Amino acid sequence: MSMPSDLERIEQRIDDLVREHLAVPDAEIAASCRDVLHEVATQAVVSSQGGKRLRARLALAAFDAAGLPVTSQARDAMTDLACAIEVFQTAALVHDDIIDDSDLRRGKPSAHRALAHQTHSESIGRGLGLMLGDILATVSISIANAAASSLGNPDTLRSVFLGMQRDVSVGQVLDLAVELTPLSDPARLADASLNVFRWKTASYTTMAPLQLGLTAAGTDPQVAGPLSERIGKPLGVAFQLADDLLDVIGYTKNTGKPVGGDIKEGKRSVLLADALALSNADDRSELIDMYEAPSRDARQVRRGIEIFTTSGAVELSRERIRKLWAQAGQAIAEAELPQTSRDMLLEACRTFIPDSCL
Amino acid sequence: MSMPSDLERIEQRIDDLVREHLAVPDAEIAASCRDVLHEVATQAVVSSQGGKRLRARLALAAFDAAGLPVTSQARDAMTDLACAIEVFQTAALVHDDIIDDSDLRRGKPSAHRALAHQTHSESIGRGLGLMLGDILATVSISIANAAASSLGNPDTLRSVFLGMQRDVSVGQVLDLAVELTPLSDPARLADASLNVFRWKTASYTTMAPLQLGLTAAGTDPQVAGPLSERIGKPLGVAFQLADDLLDVIGYTKNTGKPVGGDIKEGKRSVLLADALALSNADDRSELIDMYEAPSRDARQVRRGIEIFTTSGAVELSRERIRKLWAQAGQAIAEAELPQTSRDMLLEACRTFIPDSCL
Repeated sequence: MSMPSDLERIEQRIDDLVREHLAVPDAEIAASCRDVLHEVATQAVVSSQGGKRLRARLALAAFDAAGLPVTSQARDAMTDLACAIEVFQTAALVHDDIIDDSDLRRGKPSAHRALAHQTHSESIGRGLGLMLGDILATVSISIANAAASSLGNPDTLRSVFLGMQRDVSVGQVLDLAVELTPLSDPARLADASLNVFRWKTASYTTMAPLQLGLTAAGTDPQVAGPLSERIGKPLGVAFQLADDLLDVIGYTKNTGKPVGGDIKEGKRSVLLADALALSNADDRSELIDMYEAPSRDARQVRRGIEIFTTSGAVELSRERIRKLWAQAGQAIAEAELPQTSRDMLLEACRTFIPDSCL
Repeated sequence: MSMPSDLERIEQRIDDLVREHLAVPDAEIAASCRDVLHEVATQAVVSSQGGKRLRARLALAAFDAAGLPVTSQARDAMTDLACAIEVFQTAALVHDDIIDDSDLRRGKPSAHRALAHQTHSESIGRGLGLMLGDILATVSISIANAAASSLGNPDTLRSVFLGMQRDVSVGQVLDLAVELTPLSDPARLADASLNVFRWKTASYTTMAPLQLGLTAAGTDPQVAGPLSERIGKPLGVAFQLADDLLDVIGYTKNTGKPVGGDIKEGKRSVLLADALALSNADDRSELIDMYEAPSRDARQVRRGIEIFTTSGAVELSRERIRKLWAQAGQAIAEAELPQTSRDMLLEACRTFIPDSCL
């Protein structure tokens, strides 16, 4: 994958780009409103900090893996394009946290919560958070557009970037639709949840980063698009399955969330669907009661983890992940790229699946 | 201004463009989630209908007024770019209505309210509304980008369009900041409210449409930018002052809102600031009590209108509008354009200010 220094450069560059694009001259702002605008701009920087930058690093790895001759100016532009994906992710998370009414993000107060605290008003904080998400989404496109001008296939890059944003929003719509799906039909629930993963996660986590990186390096868009989908769709779905699985098996502290957090929140997941399908009648009704209640206590969370495990849902998730990872690997192996490029891609993609989930 | 048929073409084209960009193949969506996604797509079309299309028509008028030779293909592209401004407005209004918790928009249920009704859930309706706003904002940029490719100065057009989106979001942040401004300093409140008008209204109502139209026709961006600001800034602020004034003097039913609606909602406006500055001590404390209360009844709304009128605030708003309109007219008169172009621009801009407000 990319050099360690890539990660530092990405982090610093995101900071610089967000500050630059959020800057509005004080002279153009009425004195009494400046403080609030500064708080929003500061929150934009804070919310942008501290991601694992998996998406940016995959985009850069795909750019390098394309194996086409590029200038150092082009690689700088590619770094900016990679940063634009991360800035968009922050925008999406800010809106996500409003929809889920989440208090925390990356171990810090969520954006709307922090802004509510600063303005001493829940409703104004939520409104400012909504706008912060809008601003970051717009800024991410501005960064991507500027970068595209110095890269291959600029029109395609711009339209892939916008398609990615639309798809993530569609995915969030589907995620809300899943909340309305009855628990009585586990196969339908599993199907719907896996579909959400393709739109809400795979779209911007793996598919678009691969496509943007390959396309920006000059790969024929007609080749880069389908190849990125063949690799990125199973990889992104496997990544989300692994993320949900880690929430239950808790083999890692990397997610920054307490174990069982998804169960506590009553999140309708593939794991839940599988547990409902595989468990005995008693456990099934216990799960349904638990998830139809407005909240779940610590004892219930432990019981949920227990049923997920004993029913075989945890093992089925591992099987799903192994199968999807094999599909992604197969797509990489069959790609019409030099062996060194395929090796680079495989290594970069492998980082999306924790060992403990395979 | 533009021909009557322009308005019909704009309305139809917005409908077509929104449907086209919202279309997702059913095969890619899990069966149990399709209905909700269709409801969101339908709401996108419904929310997009029925505006006055002032902004699109101004953009087209500016394009024609530039007086440069253009192909009919280019004018079609300009129509799409003009439609993109309207689609963005719808996106912004959908988010605005969530922030203000508004029930109605253009005489119909607001988007998040309609979606709450359809899903039988306030919180899911609000989440879907938030995503609908995100999707429409992204779609507006896709429409603008595609149009820009067939027009003059495409890079400038793309960046002006994104700058417009950012500025409107900044304006919404400032609008929320005004809610935190104390009523004890009317001059400061008037200053802040006028500043909001520049960012939240003039940006996308007059400044960007003028700039996009002139630039798309091939006007030097270095000329189009400053000229659009000189005309569009006073014009857009005057337009918002007139909109607020109509809410009080009720000379027209065009706004689709009941008279005194802003007072009922406790909106902090320039009219309020002027009334606070100009009224006697008794009326001033009555206003402050009224606006610091959580809600206002019909009797209080009538008293508010009365104080706005007797204090001289209504007349001061007219004076502000007349002065700003004179500034816009002056900027048009001084523009280095043929007389016929200046006449066209003046006529187009004049439609933003109702006779009853001058």
